[in-house]
Amino acid sequence: MDFYQGRVLRIDLGSGSISSEPLNMEWAERYIGGKGLLLRYMWEYIPPRVDPWAPENPVFLVTGPFAGTNVSTASRLVVGAKSPVTGILDDSYVGGSFAPEMKFAGYDLIIIMGKAREPVVLWIKDDEVELVPAKEKYWGLKTSEIEEALREDLDENAKILSIGPAGENLIPWACLSTDQFHKAGRGGHGALFGSKNLKAVAVRGTGSVKVGDAREFLADIARIHREHVLTDFNLWANEEGTPILVDPVNGAGALPTRNWSAGSFEGADGINSEAFQRVKVANRACYQCALGCRQVHEAGGVKSEGPEYETIALCGANCGIGDLEALMRFNRECDEWGLDTISSGSVIGLAMDMTQKGIADFGLRFGEIDAYVAAPGLIARREGRGAELALGARALAAKYGVPEMAMEVKNLELPGYDPRGAFGMSIAYATSDRGGCHMRSYPIADEVLEGSRPADSLEGKAKQVIEGNVANGFIGQNFSSIKFSGIWCDFWAVDPGQLCQMFRHVFKREFSEDEIMLIGERIWNLGRLLNLREGVEPDTLPRRLYDAGWAFPEGPSAGKAIGERPFKEALQEYYRLRGWDEAGVPTEAKLAEVGVDVRLVPSGMDPATAASS
Amino acid sequence: MDFYQGRVLRIDLGSGSISSEPLNMEWAERYIGGKGLLLRYMWEYIPPRVDPWAPENPVFLVTGPFAGTNVSTASRLVVGAKSPVTGILDDSYVGGSFAPEMKFAGYDLIIIMGKAREPVVLWIKDDEVELVPAKEKYWGLKTSEIEEALREDLDENAKILSIGPAGENLIPWACLSTDQFHKAGRGGHGALFGSKNLKAVAVRGTGSVKVGDAREFLADIARIHREHVLTDFNLWANEEGTPILVDPVNGAGALPTRNWSAGSFEGADGINSEAFQRVKVANRACYQCALGCRQVHEAGGVKSEGPEYETIALCGANCGIGDLEALMRFNRECDEWGLDTISSGSVIGLAMDMTQKGIADFGLRFGEIDAYVAAPGLIARREGRGAELALGARALAAKYGVPEMAMEVKNLELPGYDPRGAFGMSIAYATSDRGGCHMRSYPIADEVLEGSRPADSLEGKAKQVIEGNVANGFIGQNFSSIKFSGIWCDFWAVDPGQLCQMFRHVFKREFSEDEIMLIGERIWNLGRLLNLREGVEPDTLPRRLYDAGWAFPEGPSAGKAIGERPFKEALQEYYRLRGWDEAGVPTEAKLAEVGVDVRLVPSGMDPATAASS
Repeated sequence: MDFYQGRVLRIDLGSGSISSEPLNMEWAERYIGGKGLLLRYMWEYIPPRVDPWAPENPVFLVTGPFAGTNVSTASRLVVGAKSPVTGILDDSYVGGSFAPEMKFAGYDLIIIMGKAREPVVLWIKDDEVELVPAKEKYWGLKTSEIEEALREDLDENAKILSIGPAGENLIPWACLSTDQFHKAGRGGHGALFGSKNLKAVAVRGTGSVKVGDAREFLADIARIHREHVLTDFNLWANEEGTPILVDPVNGAGALPTRNWSAGSFEGADGINSEAFQRVKVANRACYQCALGCRQVHEAGGVKSEGPEYETIALCGANCGIGDLEALMRFNRECDEWGLDTISSGSVIGLAMDMTQKGIADFGLRFGEIDAYVAAPGLIARREGRGAELALGARALAAKYGVPEMAMEVKNLELPGYDPRGAFGMSIAYATSDRGGCHMRSYPIADEVLEGSRPADSLEGKAKQVIEGNVANGFIGQNFSSIKFSGIWCDFWAVDPGQLCQMFRHVFKREFSEDEIMLIGERIWNLGRLLNLREGVEPDTLPRRLYDAGWAFPEGPSAGKAIGERPFKEALQEYYRLRGWDEAGVPTEAKLAEVGVDVRLVPSGMDPATAASS
Repeated sequence: MDFYQGRVLRIDLGSGSISSEPLNMEWAERYIGGKGLLLRYMWEYIPPRVDPWAPENPVFLVTGPFAGTNVSTASRLVVGAKSPVTGILDDSYVGGSFAPEMKFAGYDLIIIMGKAREPVVLWIKDDEVELVPAKEKYWGLKTSEIEEALREDLDENAKILSIGPAGENLIPWACLSTDQFHKAGRGGHGALFGSKNLKAVAVRGTGSVKVGDAREFLADIARIHREHVLTDFNLWANEEGTPILVDPVNGAGALPTRNWSAGSFEGADGINSEAFQRVKVANRACYQCALGCRQVHEAGGVKSEGPEYETIALCGANCGIGDLEALMRFNRECDEWGLDTISSGSVIGLAMDMTQKGIADFGLRFGEIDAYVAAPGLIARREGRGAELALGARALAAKYGVPEMAMEVKNLELPGYDPRGAFGMSIAYATSDRGGCHMRSYPIADEVLEGSRPADSLEGKAKQVIEGNVANGFIGQNFSSIKFSGIWCDFWAVDPGQLCQMFRHVFKREFSEDEIMLIGERIWNLGRLLNLREGVEPDTLPRRLYDAGWAFPEGPSAGKAIGERPFKEALQEYYRLRGWDEAGVPTEAKLAEVGVDVRLVPSGMDPATAASS
């Protein structure tokens, strides 16, 4: 089939077992690629209820049908696994040039199982697969070092997906790096690599991606780019990038500040878009992307892409840091050691809070720069106070008897939007399929950025979380599910109509916008079923967001609290709108309606509860 | 595609996860069905080096392309898994009507993973799949009882594949039963069912199998049946069945007698074909088979199909039992409790030997009937002396410091041919892909039954084990691999030319006999690679077969010993002929030549030993 290479590569690092099989095109027709195809393969290849740290828990690298073509923003790779942090699915996306290279090597999907007896690098050059010993030369290297070393030793054009020392040391929020500054950040995929003794995957492909009638495809894509990509609406990404969010979110009282103890940060001016524009030296782009959103900054002795908004929020405001140079240095430390910045900022902010409240002494205080910049390295090496911080927010707070101080959902630390300044985000976080995440649904767009809906009410938000608002580019869960199956980047506000125009080249048939949304809903339901199979926690929020006693005394969101009862009502409304039962289990009718092709039946239950699929 | 249903059903009993996926037709083209397709799916779906007792170790039920058509003998099912007995692949075949019913329900292949929390029956009715609670009503039933109960409760036409109490109690040689008298005997699949809390799989299908141009197919098959099935050569199966082997094997000094302490049994006349013909009351046939080899006997208050030759050898001669009625009763006990008769006879014969030599007292003596007939029940229930016997031959002998008294290869007890009376069987046993088994290669046909080769020499036997002798219907490893992918029964002496004529209907292209043999070799190499991946024991024999000190003092095979050095030379010759290295590892050149599509690469080895696929 055009667009797809039609091949899956499977490697077991423990036994050295290698095989390649045809891509399951029935699944590709049903679930597209990227997120959808990932979830279907996860359903099939994850041993149900497997211990996420066990060698049997596989890691999946999945491309989309457009990776390696000239469709803007669609070069993304999704890394998927049963997360050791949340115990449920985690799909983490990363740009750069890895996914196209993987396609050029001939694979749509790579499944990595097992644990190598000693550290290795998985080296894939077209159909040659090698496990390169990594113990002596590569293990211990930081992320920029490993990329450089592997390009020198293997192939100067190899694309590398690697871990830093944080992954080697199984830090729960260790991430994956590629093209140095691109991270598959959330859910601990770096720790999973580490648990498999896998330092990196290097790939080099000399093939190409076929697109059927190239003339027609190129003409169509050129038109779409002209009309829908390179528009004023999208160019914020190129001009300012995500730091553009700092001011409005801060203004709404939704900027996590000093471990979520305030919603506005008095030092925001030092780390907002205007500040970063002053140190901007260049733009960079992912493979095949016309937007070029990467902002290259130089400050504090560091030259790097980013930080993105989430880093500014969690590692800046949430740590009481308004010093741009310190933030640049901290961000670079996280990048080099291989740590997700959202969780890093959340845990360190928590540690600062605990220290200042006298609950424990981590030598960290809001706004104090030296200890702050040193912290990622200590965590990654599990050194000194870092060993304890490596527990992650939930376990750290629980250890000291202050669970309410950790801001997480399903053990994934929350990103940079305090729901008290944008109530819809509470439903988005609680119902996200990978725990506390803003990337499945983004109601704050309507509540704050575009301002068309009240930010301090849950009314209608369940529906909004599911459906989004395509008109202003705010994604909901259903649409994001298919968008991330494309895999288009969040930064192109593509709409269902444009997806129809692009998909028809892939599948040689017409799509309706309704079908696009139905596929999205199908994927979301499949994810829910997978999470139920693996044992997902209840959909709840951190207590602090419920209770009025924790409301901010001042600022734009002063006095606001979500309230447990309104939240639970909204959650039931969400389940109803989803066609799920009161416990959040998709009904047979809904699964049949949306075309999910797998089922869960009770196993070994009381005789009375036996059910058929 | 015609002949195949094109669907695979996967069930996880632990989580209730159910899904169906398209059959991988690329693998079907390459590995046909049955054994070949099983091994390819095992490579993919068995977590490498998994503990065979772990819930993650799946069980596979696989049909062949001709199941459900009118091709004689091709209704067989192969049950596959990583065996808890041998730790390597085990493919166990069973006739009856289960495989066609599975095809009619729409599946070529069923993969069962996980462990149910409480006992269940997996009930598949076309595309409805149900886990029926089995704890109260079904667990504990014998094999005839469970079939009757499930037909009454579920569907009178359901086909049942079940375990008896032996499987529930994880007896290592517990087998699977279907149509009451048909057993997937070897390798402990019954124990695997038990370990998954799976009492039975019941299936009912209302669909059909498509064969393309039915008129042409039927005409061709009718001709093949007339010319090649219903011949004098094949009709021994209908007239006498496998008991016909007793006299010639006994006459060659190759009949295991009193725990392999003699090669001829003085009481053979009581349990040979002539004796069984006297109590024969009917013939029965598997679905779609014109041969009708099943001999129904009535004696000793028992009416049953069988015993087959292997049962007569191991449970008769090897236990010093020449009493036909006792043997009928013992066989029925094994059938009802769900025990493989080869291993039962081997273990009980060993226990008799140990008792009579004063090594231990199991209350069992050669030829003593009452304790003998009671033993299968004691073993199945792990009751009294049965608890210790349930260790199996290797572990039982080892426990008492007499490992040489156990006759097994790779922990699978040897079947009914003593290699000292048919030297070629030593290579067949040692190189069998599932441990001590006669079903991959049968050189005794040339050595004894047809008598064209010396029985007391290893010369040329390595080649013979690999290639067989198609002219006299003696299968070798390569041909049996493709024959059991068909899946044709051993009892039809089909040849490669006839396979070509049948396969062309399935694959809509011509086959050459060379290609048939190449596919067989491909499958055999895939099996070897899988066994190496899982950690196969060295290819050796029980010491008793090597040493002249153990040779029989009298009888037709008196004084014969295989000799360790000649055996090892023959084994190296076997490896060379196979294109494997001295350690028995297939070379890259051989794998490429025969078209195996998977590889093993070293993982985490010393830097010097890193290799590419």
